[in-house]
Amino acid sequence: MLDSSFTREYKQIGAKIVYYRRLKGYTQETLAFKAGISTSYLSRIERGTYATGISLSTFMKIAKALDVDISKLFEMDF
Amino acid sequence: MLDSSFTREYKQIGAKIVYYRRLKGYTQETLAFKAGISTSYLSRIERGTYATGISLSTFMKIAKALDVDISKLFEMDF
Repeated sequence: MLDSSFTREYKQIGAKIVYYRRLKGYTQETLAFKAGISTSYLSRIERGTYATGISLSTFMKIAKALDVDISKLFEMDF
Repeated sequence: MLDSSFTREYKQIGAKIVYYRRLKGYTQETLAFKAGISTSYLSRIERGTYATGISLSTFMKIAKALDVDISKLFEMDF
């Protein structure tokens, strides 16, 4: 069940993660390892296609691994 | 299993939700109803005491009900 009501936001958040990952020069594998999640899970998060609800703590682990404030990942640019 | 590694962040996010809820003059019941979650769930989120991972979409629904940007809820003040 894709939570369609926030599709745009999820895509935006995924794009931000890709942006900060590239700034750090990390591959998906490296970031996934540092955040303690699987690479396939990270790639779904980066594409913004969630089959189930992603927990906030997963985003916190990603933000920590990227060394950015969690709020940075959620700044909406639309 | 409390995700102890982010306890401070969860408490901060909870305090922000209470802050914006009060700005709107909403009771917990009103905000919980508008966000489509139970009042007891909201009160646990506001206290920052999570037994299980709260999904990002729950915070998105709360932010929408409060009429604030999602990133506002995650600005860390420590």
